[in-house]
Parts: sequence; structure tokens; C-alpha cells
Amino acid sequence: MTPLNTFRLSLEYDGTRFAGWQVQPKERTVQGEVERALGILLRHDVRVLAAGRTDAGVHALGQVCTFRTDVEIAEGRLLRGLNGILPKDVAVWAAEPVASDFHPRFRAQGKHYRYRILARPARAAVDRARCWHVHEPLDPERLQRALDPLVGTHDFHSFRAADCPNKDPVKTVRRASVTTDRSPFVEIDIVASGFLKQMVRIVIGTAIEVAIGRREPEDVASILAACDRQQAGRTAPARGLFLIRVIYGEGD
Amino acid sequence: MTPLNTFRLSLEYDGTRFAGWQVQPKERTVQGEVERALGILLRHDVRVLAAGRTDAGVHALGQVCTFRTDVEIAEGRLLRGLNGILPKDVAVWAAEPVASDFHPRFRAQGKHYRYRILARPARAAVDRARCWHVHEPLDPERLQRALDPLVGTHDFHSFRAADCPNKDPVKTVRRASVTTDRSPFVEIDIVASGFLKQMVRIVIGTAIEVAIGRREPEDVASILAACDRQQAGRTAPARGLFLIRVIYGEGD
Repeated sequence: MTPLNTFRLSLEYDGTRFAGWQVQPKERTVQGEVERALGILLRHDVRVLAAGRTDAGVHALGQVCTFRTDVEIAEGRLLRGLNGILPKDVAVWAAEPVASDFHPRFRAQGKHYRYRILARPARAAVDRARCWHVHEPLDPERLQRALDPLVGTHDFHSFRAADCPNKDPVKTVRRASVTTDRSPFVEIDIVASGFLKQMVRIVIGTAIEVAIGRREPEDVASILAACDRQQAGRTAPARGLFLIRVIYGEGD
Repeated sequence: MTPLNTFRLSLEYDGTRFAGWQVQPKERTVQGEVERALGILLRHDVRVLAAGRTDAGVHALGQVCTFRTDVEIAEGRLLRGLNGILPKDVAVWAAEPVASDFHPRFRAQGKHYRYRILARPARAAVDRARCWHVHEPLDPERLQRALDPLVGTHDFHSFRAADCPNKDPVKTVRRASVTTDRSPFVEIDIVASGFLKQMVRIVIGTAIEVAIGRREPEDVASILAACDRQQAGRTAPARGLFLIRVIYGEGD
């Protein structure tokens, strides 16, 4: 029997025209397109395993997935072959062999997400599918103060979707920082040990209410402590969210 | 007779689906869309005057144009009205009254363009319409050395399109700098007193040949001195180019 080879793919996608990462019947999904391309290239059915799902409309610059094959294929040919078959809104930028027991989700030490806000009265044009337009005057300092209480290890129950399947709502946020050096864009980088369903989008929706003066920065600690989704703000739109990177240890 | 009001508009556009700035019969142009929107809003024919044309496919974050009207309209209503009428790939982000003799091109002290390159073997996905993919290994230091000789006042005849109508090919480049802080993107910022037709794109096409090792950094000074378009490299694609800002004096 031919030994199985396990590969890890790093990929980016424009989430605009996808119903998210995960395969769903009759929907165009990133996983579906990647599995289709692998099937054409390797001439057998392939299932991929991702570091995490992304919702419909969310973009990724550094999603990671793995798959197994008994086909002998060089990394370079795999990469070029996939990019030749994949639709133009998905691209694989790294392909490498990994140990057969490598699990892209369980081995991840954390993830880095970025959320982009266009902060000005006028709507977007160039990046209209890749940002959330907040037309109310927004104070980046208040935005940062709203995010500060989230750093550390907390139960993030207030900041997850009602149907979030994650059994452990306790996550460690290592970084939650606001940058304005790409004005009129305001970008929020959040790095955590793990994320609950819609966690970043609910965090952003809540923090923006603080930034535009509808809530106080102090409210965030109480919302967190309440462990009640109703206390938090609205879910920010998917189109502003980017999965930047999945973080692995040095050995991986 | 009602006195004429002159307004200056600052606008951004996604150049992907435009045949450039300037009105052309049967083509979709930015100028055409802006004049159409102004006509609907103000109920009279309007001609706009831009700080400069952009080629088909070139994007802008900070194009400037002016127009005259005898209609009394507040800036806020003008801005919101235009953004409500304009197609989604154009947005006006500032509207302000200016003196009737203000000319957006003659009064400009310079312009700032940015060129974005995706420097890696794998093609783009998210920003596929907003960058030039250079798959050959690219040395950012050589890229900077290729640009250095262009800073200063020179005859840029070697770096302009054959049909460039500009009578004075002598321009002053104030800045030509490479940044890699958005890796895998390499961004080149060029600020000059003025630009010739396709000047940035020919500069980039030439500098990339140096950056990938096909020419030497020292060649650029000779190309400049030759005043011969044939000596320079190919014209880089329009989709990587952004008009970032038109620079005016403090009084403007």
C-alpha cells in the first residue's frame, strides 16, 4: 500500500462571493472549491481539514488546511497546479508536507484577525467589499479603551453567536489594538488563543458603539462579566473581517 | 444673473471597470459618471475639470475635480446627494467651495501616486484587481536603488508614452520610496511636481526589471539620460496604480 502523504496549504480568499469556508449543499464555499481543485489535480476525492471556519463574506489572507493523498506530488507542482484550477478569488500561497498527525486546528496556538473600518462620512468605493463603513464620528482612543478590558483570559460568552458550538467559551486574548496609520481606515488587530463563533464581529460591533459615544468604555468589563449575549452590541458586518494568520509553534 | 459657485470635489474610485477618467464616447468613464450624477442632482449640464487624467484601470483615492453651478447647494447635501447617485465604484469624500479662478491642475503643486506589487510565486486572490503580481524573486533593496536616480529634476522623456501630449518633459521627483511593511506586498510611493503620460507605470516596469536582476541599478541613470522611451522597460499594468493625493498649497 502506498504511504499517505499529508500536506498543509496556506491560502487567501476574497470572501465576497462565498457562503463561508465550510462545505454546504448547493452553496459556493471555499472548502468546496479547494476540494474540487484537489480532486481534479490528484484524480481522487479529497477532504480538507481547516484551522477554523470563516463565516459567509469573511476574507482570509492566511487560512490553513491539510489533506492526505497517496499521490506523489512535489510542493511546487501542487501549488502551481492548484492556482491554475482554483477560481480567481482563492489562491494557495504555500504548500508543504507535514507529519501525518498534524491537525491544523488542534495544533494552532492562536489566530490573528484584522477588522477594517472606513471611518468618514462618505461611503467607500475602492474597498467597498472589504471594510465596514462607519459614518458617525469615531474616536480611535475610545475604541482602544473599549478593547483593553478584553485582553487576558476571560469567558467570552457575551461575545459569541447564540448557536456557537464551542464547548469552552474561555479564551485568551493576547492583543487587541487599534491602528490609524491607514487613515481614513481604522484597523483593529485581535490575536487570541482561539475564537468563538462571530466573536470578533460582536467585539467590534460593541467597541464601535463605545467609539461613537453610544456606550462608555467602562461598559465593556460589565458586558464581559455578564456572560450574556444580549448585553453586547450588534454583530459587525462580515466584509470588514480578515483572518490574517494561524499561529503555530516553531516546530510546526 | 445668479453668481456662479465653484466647488472642489475629492473623490476615490475603483478603476477596474472604467475606461479611465476622461469622457470618451460609448465608454464608461469616471468623469462621465461624475458629470451625470451632478446633472441629476443640480438639474443642469455640468462639466468637471480634473487635476489630471488617469488611464483605464488606474485607481484613485484622492482625485480632485472642480465644477461650476448657479444652484445654491450646501456642501453636505452635495456630498450626500452625489454619493447617493454615483455608482458604487466611485465616491466623493469631500466637497468644498473654492474661488472661481481655482484650477485643479494648474494650482496643484504635485501629486502622490502609489504602485502596489504582490511579490511572491503565488498569484493574488483578495487584491487581484488592485496589484501587479510579480512572481520572480524581487529584491526590494535593488528596487530602491533603481528608483534613487529618478529623484530630483530631470527630463523624463524616456519614461513617457509615445503619445504623451505634455509639452514639458522636465519634472521634479521629490520622493520615490519602497516599503515592505505590508509584505507580501511591496509598495512604491512616488511624489512629483507633475507626471507625464504613463510615467509611473514605465518607471515601475523598468525598476522591476532591476529588482528581479534583469538589469543593473546603474542602468537607470543611463536610461534617464538617453531621453529615449526604447531604453526603458515595459509599462507596468494599470491595476497596481493608485492616485493617492493631489497636493495643493496651504491657501488652497
